[in-house]
Amino acid sequence: MNAEVHADVQAYMQDVGRRARAAARVLGRADTNAKNRALLAIAEQLEQALPRLLEENEKDLAAGRANGLTPALLDRLALGEKGVRGMAQGLREIAAQPDPIGEITGLKFRPSGIQVGRMRVPLGVIGIIYESRPNVTADAAGLCLKAGNACILRGGSEAIRSNQAIAVCIRAGLEAAGLPFDAVQVIDTTDRAAVGELIRMREYVDVIVPRGGKGLIARIADEARVPVIKHLDGICHVYIDERADPGKAIRVAVNAKCRRFGICGAMETLLVHEAVAPYVLPQLGELYRAAGVELRGCERTRQLLPGCAIATEDDWRTEYLDAILAIRVVDDLDAAIEHIETYGSHHTDSIITEDLTRARRFLREVDSASVMVNASTQFADGGEYGLGAEIGISTDKLHARGPVGVEGLTTQKYVVLGEGSCRA
Amino acid sequence: MNAEVHADVQAYMQDVGRRARAAARVLGRADTNAKNRALLAIAEQLEQALPRLLEENEKDLAAGRANGLTPALLDRLALGEKGVRGMAQGLREIAAQPDPIGEITGLKFRPSGIQVGRMRVPLGVIGIIYESRPNVTADAAGLCLKAGNACILRGGSEAIRSNQAIAVCIRAGLEAAGLPFDAVQVIDTTDRAAVGELIRMREYVDVIVPRGGKGLIARIADEARVPVIKHLDGICHVYIDERADPGKAIRVAVNAKCRRFGICGAMETLLVHEAVAPYVLPQLGELYRAAGVELRGCERTRQLLPGCAIATEDDWRTEYLDAILAIRVVDDLDAAIEHIETYGSHHTDSIITEDLTRARRFLREVDSASVMVNASTQFADGGEYGLGAEIGISTDKLHARGPVGVEGLTTQKYVVLGEGSCRA
Repeated sequence: MNAEVHADVQAYMQDVGRRARAAARVLGRADTNAKNRALLAIAEQLEQALPRLLEENEKDLAAGRANGLTPALLDRLALGEKGVRGMAQGLREIAAQPDPIGEITGLKFRPSGIQVGRMRVPLGVIGIIYESRPNVTADAAGLCLKAGNACILRGGSEAIRSNQAIAVCIRAGLEAAGLPFDAVQVIDTTDRAAVGELIRMREYVDVIVPRGGKGLIARIADEARVPVIKHLDGICHVYIDERADPGKAIRVAVNAKCRRFGICGAMETLLVHEAVAPYVLPQLGELYRAAGVELRGCERTRQLLPGCAIATEDDWRTEYLDAILAIRVVDDLDAAIEHIETYGSHHTDSIITEDLTRARRFLREVDSASVMVNASTQFADGGEYGLGAEIGISTDKLHARGPVGVEGLTTQKYVVLGEGSCRA
Repeated sequence: MNAEVHADVQAYMQDVGRRARAAARVLGRADTNAKNRALLAIAEQLEQALPRLLEENEKDLAAGRANGLTPALLDRLALGEKGVRGMAQGLREIAAQPDPIGEITGLKFRPSGIQVGRMRVPLGVIGIIYESRPNVTADAAGLCLKAGNACILRGGSEAIRSNQAIAVCIRAGLEAAGLPFDAVQVIDTTDRAAVGELIRMREYVDVIVPRGGKGLIARIADEARVPVIKHLDGICHVYIDERADPGKAIRVAVNAKCRRFGICGAMETLLVHEAVAPYVLPQLGELYRAAGVELRGCERTRQLLPGCAIATEDDWRTEYLDAILAIRVVDDLDAAIEHIETYGSHHTDSIITEDLTRARRFLREVDSASVMVNASTQFADGGEYGLGAEIGISTDKLHARGPVGVEGLTTQKYVVLGEGSCRA
């Protein structure tokens, strides 16, 4: 299965959009059982198709090697048996989650006699644009399906054969469950014009979720005419307050940086109150160095950590996603909040303190998707928050903020019940 | 107070944006009392400034007359003593509403030991673009203030003197309450480039709310780089089902059209099941004619209502906002839903039926911001829904759908509480 070439990409995408909209109407009223049956059937199709999936994936890998993809990118592209079983397992977990659709909340009588409440409903059609990892094809399709949405998926060109093979399994599973196979469509061309069209089809697409590098997301946000749920940088901070418990501070500051360097919830800058810096920084410095973390500090940090490199203005604004940490000693809580608001990316920030009033101030005043007290920023994750699988972590403020699970792919409409009620 | 001319509109707007962002940080942590004190102080300032407000409004009216504004537009522009008292009263009502900010919901322990919940917080900076009615200046400022947001207001050029005079009162009220007066800024120029800048300042503006005609909103949606909460057409339907109670059907169908013609919740198309059409349509025809409503029907309608004009495809797609009604006889509930999904604007639609299963299908399958059973579409209103004052009625699906009150001007962030908790 190679990439298709469409003479008229716009016409192709319009057709994809029309089909998605029609499928969304059927999916929106599909009951929980039908959706779960489809999720389980897709899982089965994927496992049955294991040899074919590995074969198509191998073709992508061979092309990638020929095109000089870096080892890291090849690693992201490789599916393997474990990857296929992981996709199937993920779909079974989504099937086991509760169905958010149809829940009516807050139904109350009004003085006029009508009852007003809200019903949770699908968004409609979701466009997802992602890079490399082919397993996103199954994960994203499963989340959209559970929430009653049709989706249009556009993966990376380097994974086109793997994605098309996964798409065949998804469509077979949908059909087996009696749902329209257009509910999940995987764009079959690598033509970039297809993306341009997808993010502008307001009539057919309700929201775009881009998953990938900063460049991809910024470009989509600039050019889209459809609303976008963005996931931008995670420049996350831990602030060790004057009233921190030093044991907790050291434990959390190490975990927030070192558990995994490459995830968006990893701490990139450590802020330390000047009163406790002389005590905690030397200990932390040793632990970080033992873990191979390069340190870049402000002047006061460097006095406490001889040999620490100097942090420039750029360091405060950088998402390293690597074994590098910026450290700054601050005068007080106000200076810490000021730093976070100036340099942070409103993703996830944590304060380490035993002081209730300072904790409350930090929670309220730091304008980030996740604000934490005495906890590692690496907890910023849909699974850890109890949302189940996540489609991404939104740094937007509207609609969905922070980890986005199935519920983030739904909306609410007002329901009004009367008895022939008229407005006065 | 005349419109200002800024040599460099971009620099002016950037400065406005910077001030708004700074004010938003103060406002976001202002307590309920401070915000309510400001709302009450602004109300008082407006009442004290009555003569000056009427004087400035008279200058706008004189300029409007000289520029040939229609009587309808002049009517919208006129403030009058009643208008000024109305603004003050509206602000006092907003002060009396509960403060949504800071509420923490759903705080639950997770298996890792952390507690995760969500805190309601302001959006930040809201840009509001509106036409004619100067009272929107006070209403919008009040709602934004209550929700802890700074706002940048851009009213119609024909109301610039009235809006500036109202702005003086708002700023005086903010200062009296000890809040930054940059929390509410009214653009002092009629230069259109200011709007272009406002809707593109992603760094300083979190959301744009346009209030006005279809043309204004479509243009802003096309050009904005900041998320927009849109309020587009209300092509609202009432469907009289085969199992409708005829008395309720006639009552609701008359109220939905005739209570007020010019609001977005007014019914524009009446759909009638063929089995009940011969009974209800002749009665409704007489009532509509008595109310001066022009009728345009499908062929089957015209057989039952002699003299009724013929409805064209265009009529199904038109928001008349006037004493005109399109009528269509349909075969069944499926045909009614199909019509609404094809021609409607996803605003507000109602079914009249005594049949539970059909009511449930209509509620679930009609993809509109408000779906109703046995109730008039004219109920689509923040006050009627119990939201208090509304900033508009969103036809968007993301973030806020349907009437948008104070809560629609807020968002939620995740709150995570631990005890030195680290992720495994």
